[in-house]
Amino acid sequence: MSEQIAQHLGQRIVTRDLKPGERIQELKVAGALNVSRGSVREALLIMERRHLVQIFPRRGAVVSALTPDSVNHLYDIYIELLCVLGNKLLERWSGQELQGILGQVRELQQVVDALGAGSPDVAEQVIDAGFAVMQEAYSLVGNPFLEETLENFRPAISRTYFVALDHFRGDIRETARFFRALGQAAAAGDADALASAIRAFGEHQRGRVLSILEREGEPA
Amino acid sequence: MSEQIAQHLGQRIVTRDLKPGERIQELKVAGALNVSRGSVREALLIMERRHLVQIFPRRGAVVSALTPDSVNHLYDIYIELLCVLGNKLLERWSGQELQGILGQVRELQQVVDALGAGSPDVAEQVIDAGFAVMQEAYSLVGNPFLEETLENFRPAISRTYFVALDHFRGDIRETARFFRALGQAAAAGDADALASAIRAFGEHQRGRVLSILEREGEPA
Repeated sequence: MSEQIAQHLGQRIVTRDLKPGERIQELKVAGALNVSRGSVREALLIMERRHLVQIFPRRGAVVSALTPDSVNHLYDIYIELLCVLGNKLLERWSGQELQGILGQVRELQQVVDALGAGSPDVAEQVIDAGFAVMQEAYSLVGNPFLEETLENFRPAISRTYFVALDHFRGDIRETARFFRALGQAAAAGDADALASAIRAFGEHQRGRVLSILEREGEPA
Repeated sequence: MSEQIAQHLGQRIVTRDLKPGERIQELKVAGALNVSRGSVREALLIMERRHLVQIFPRRGAVVSALTPDSVNHLYDIYIELLCVLGNKLLERWSGQELQGILGQVRELQQVVDALGAGSPDVAEQVIDAGFAVMQEAYSLVGNPFLEETLENFRPAISRTYFVALDHFRGDIRETARFFRALGQAAAAGDADALASAIRAFGEHQRGRVLSILEREGEPA
């Protein structure tokens, strides 16, 4: 039950229906969703773990900030964690053994190429497919702590993607290039090239989100 | 309240008073501590975030495993996160600007040298001092996500230190060497040397814990 509430409220935070800095009041949520206050408190703890809210001793839960600083902090650690995932993947498996995941990446790239910049919903499809590649990488690496840590960042990262969503379409070529570089580095078993590809794409995404956030922050 | 329960039960897990694989029953804990069942459920969520328990849909909460595999997974990610912390520290600050934290490391090293291998409680003092150095590094790096992620691993790492505690005394020279290498690399602003020092020490600790766990696992 608390997981369902966390999913529901989490989705509202990711789409910015619940705004950064907004207070989430236990009693109000419990009444609106017709659930117990205890379930809401548990849901808030789950959302705190996922970096979507912060819980303060007296003030209660507040939707996490979405500012240039918070985006920078988030991408700083997320990019490093992705590099750890890539490194561990290549430590354990050769390019030959990675054919399954590489096929998945190639398909993804073809979807991106076929859909092109104009199609609706392409951004969401690409984002979901990207997370599916990560799922496959988790199971190949087999480290539950790394998986959990990365998955806990996923909603906060999704929220930043959502900021950039309307602008993503023109950006789809960049994503295709990234998947190509990723596949080539992995097939060659080249950990440095893999880390470079991850960093380049991560920095590109960070830059997009920051530029849009800054534009939003300007007076109309 | 739930934080206090989490601290209390967490300490019992770290010291292996509560054994890996043991079930933690909400009702029993609530009765024993004279607290509400809701507070216990919240405490369990906090402990799950700290990698001390796993919560399963029907079975409830179980103390996390402490096996060679789980120790390997834990050290695999913890060492990488420490390297990220070290890297970010040197990205942002020069050796000159790190005099404060370097002084702390030197003091720690002197304490280790002065106490020597024979003194009681030396291991706990060194462990606490090591975590204090990390606190200082967090505030210099200023990334709350990195701090939170590392701090969430601290109890599980402490539990592995606890496994090796009785054997740590003869190991104190290794720790002194580590702090010396750490200080030198940081003062020189040498990120590669810093990562090497962190990795070498992390691998040493991992090896100690694994060898003791394996010995414990043998029939008497």
